[in-house]
Amino acid sequence: MTDTSLYGTGRPRTAGAGADGEELLRRGTALVDPPLRVAVDRLHPSMAAVCRYHLGWDADAAPTAVRHVAKRVRAALALLSVRSVGAPERLAAVAGTAVELVHQLSLLHDDIMDGDTERRGRLAAWARFGTGAAVLAGDALVVQAVATVFRAQAPGARAAMEDLIVTVEQMVEGQAEDLALERRALREVSASRYARMARGKTGALFGCAAALGAVLADAPPPVVRALREAGSDLGVAFQILDDVLGLWGDSALTGKPVGTDLVRGKKTLPLVLAAAVESADGRGVAELLDSVPLPQDRVPEVMRRLGALGSREHAEAAAARHVASALAALDAVELPGAVRQEWSSLVDCLSRRRR
Amino acid sequence: MTDTSLYGTGRPRTAGAGADGEELLRRGTALVDPPLRVAVDRLHPSMAAVCRYHLGWDADAAPTAVRHVAKRVRAALALLSVRSVGAPERLAAVAGTAVELVHQLSLLHDDIMDGDTERRGRLAAWARFGTGAAVLAGDALVVQAVATVFRAQAPGARAAMEDLIVTVEQMVEGQAEDLALERRALREVSASRYARMARGKTGALFGCAAALGAVLADAPPPVVRALREAGSDLGVAFQILDDVLGLWGDSALTGKPVGTDLVRGKKTLPLVLAAAVESADGRGVAELLDSVPLPQDRVPEVMRRLGALGSREHAEAAAARHVASALAALDAVELPGAVRQEWSSLVDCLSRRRR
Repeated sequence: MTDTSLYGTGRPRTAGAGADGEELLRRGTALVDPPLRVAVDRLHPSMAAVCRYHLGWDADAAPTAVRHVAKRVRAALALLSVRSVGAPERLAAVAGTAVELVHQLSLLHDDIMDGDTERRGRLAAWARFGTGAAVLAGDALVVQAVATVFRAQAPGARAAMEDLIVTVEQMVEGQAEDLALERRALREVSASRYARMARGKTGALFGCAAALGAVLADAPPPVVRALREAGSDLGVAFQILDDVLGLWGDSALTGKPVGTDLVRGKKTLPLVLAAAVESADGRGVAELLDSVPLPQDRVPEVMRRLGALGSREHAEAAAARHVASALAALDAVELPGAVRQEWSSLVDCLSRRRR
Repeated sequence: MTDTSLYGTGRPRTAGAGADGEELLRRGTALVDPPLRVAVDRLHPSMAAVCRYHLGWDADAAPTAVRHVAKRVRAALALLSVRSVGAPERLAAVAGTAVELVHQLSLLHDDIMDGDTERRGRLAAWARFGTGAAVLAGDALVVQAVATVFRAQAPGARAAMEDLIVTVEQMVEGQAEDLALERRALREVSASRYARMARGKTGALFGCAAALGAVLADAPPPVVRALREAGSDLGVAFQILDDVLGLWGDSALTGKPVGTDLVRGKKTLPLVLAAAVESADGRGVAELLDSVPLPQDRVPEVMRRLGALGSREHAEAAAARHVASALAALDAVELPGAVRQEWSSLVDCLSRRRR
């Protein structure tokens, strides 16, 4: 992967725009990490230990954690959410903390579901502390997320709570669909079914992150809708890039082994698109992937075919379309001052993700 | 176990009092099962399938499910909660549904944590559908529980939501403590530490069930406090009886194999009390149980010693004290008409549990 933008933002990049995106990520993290620590510190010591390890806050984490820190994408979205409606940053802290707690719950539980033994270059929490401890730690975090929004002092707290509920419902639905698709033959999974799954699994929480600060501030519904739509599309793009990195990424950067999705039968977009474009006369990618788990010795052949079919480029183009759609949603509403440019900067920054 | 009450209710039983308890259990179930089905039907088909199986609602369940139906103890408590303050039954349906959803989540996740492969005489959901599916089904249920209370049309809906949050926090705390105690030597676990664990793990949700209907109705705080205290004490008694049934129950009735807690190193009250009463000069129960998992061939020796130490009787006496304390809490407030007698009937009914 080159270090240039995977897809354009539809606007010329100005000097320093990338830096703005990085700055937003840093500020989002700085806003959310303190209340996140407070939430974790409230837990039973054994649960707090699991969460601290999972978040890379334990003493042993230093060498790997430094590389993997500052991935609080959702916190940056929460920050832009309040900036988009001129609301105070304290609402971004509430929204970002709740969303991040839900995100961490989903990572803890998804790693169990997906049987992923590695995260951020070391053992996943369940592989380190046991499945039971990781299940319970996730349960502990979702309650903290609910409590964070429910107890918020904000004009739109009630609507925000409803928002969080629906978001987690959609995430569970998306994750259930993801698991269900694993057992399907590749040819049965259309790109639109993939998109529905990704919209639940990843898009819902991105959409919530982008909207929740504005909801807490009781912002006008059209702006909230635009923010949610933008966040949701960005989330789908993010998920597609995750799929791409899972096949062609650098495991030293992603922190998880390349090809695990492939072996496990995950219906990632590059595969779905490969099956869609190749001729249906048998012995294509779809047939190669019929056995789950995929034998390791078939991986090179699958990768060769994906290359020949241009699946990576097709997937990246799909991600670019979702990004363009996100920015178009934002262009449909009036945002104060430089905030529209900040959105572009963040999107630009995310689109160059390599981990 | 004989079929008479394990412990008295502190009042003479009138003819038909037991029937009243059964009737309350039936009516609680009838009140809660329809909205419970609605909540389950809303889930992704694959998740709904897991939940229906877990709840014994699937077609295959008939023979075993009939035996294990009507265990909606918490729904009966919710019914008594509204009757205790003269509130409408629809609030009992809300409270009972939310509490039952949380209960079912905890069963789904606890079976994973405890490695219990059987529930209600057949495979536990995780053993049947896979760990991932059972984790996700539990996540789906907790969101439904939150949604049920949050969306309730009731004067005390906000306080009820706060109540539910704190309850789930306490349950997670109790379950974390339960897991932590597994790794402790028996001698390190005092009866009061056991009680703290049981108060979180089981007492919190019983307390919530007994209080939540009244909270929704915005009932006077002293009555709510008494109801919660009574429920919590009943929950601890219920947990102790669960411990007793796990050692001396009939697995054909309990639906799970006898002795699994013992082998696994669970610090159940009969063991904790045995270690407390036996002399500390070595080779007692505590030393026999030092190896986890306990080799099966040591089980008869442990059971013989527990018998000699009267652990079952000590545990049942402790349960009786919690029941007495529950009824005393109720006696401290004014309850309308026959409701106090209904509480006694339900308590009586629960105290004769054999599964």
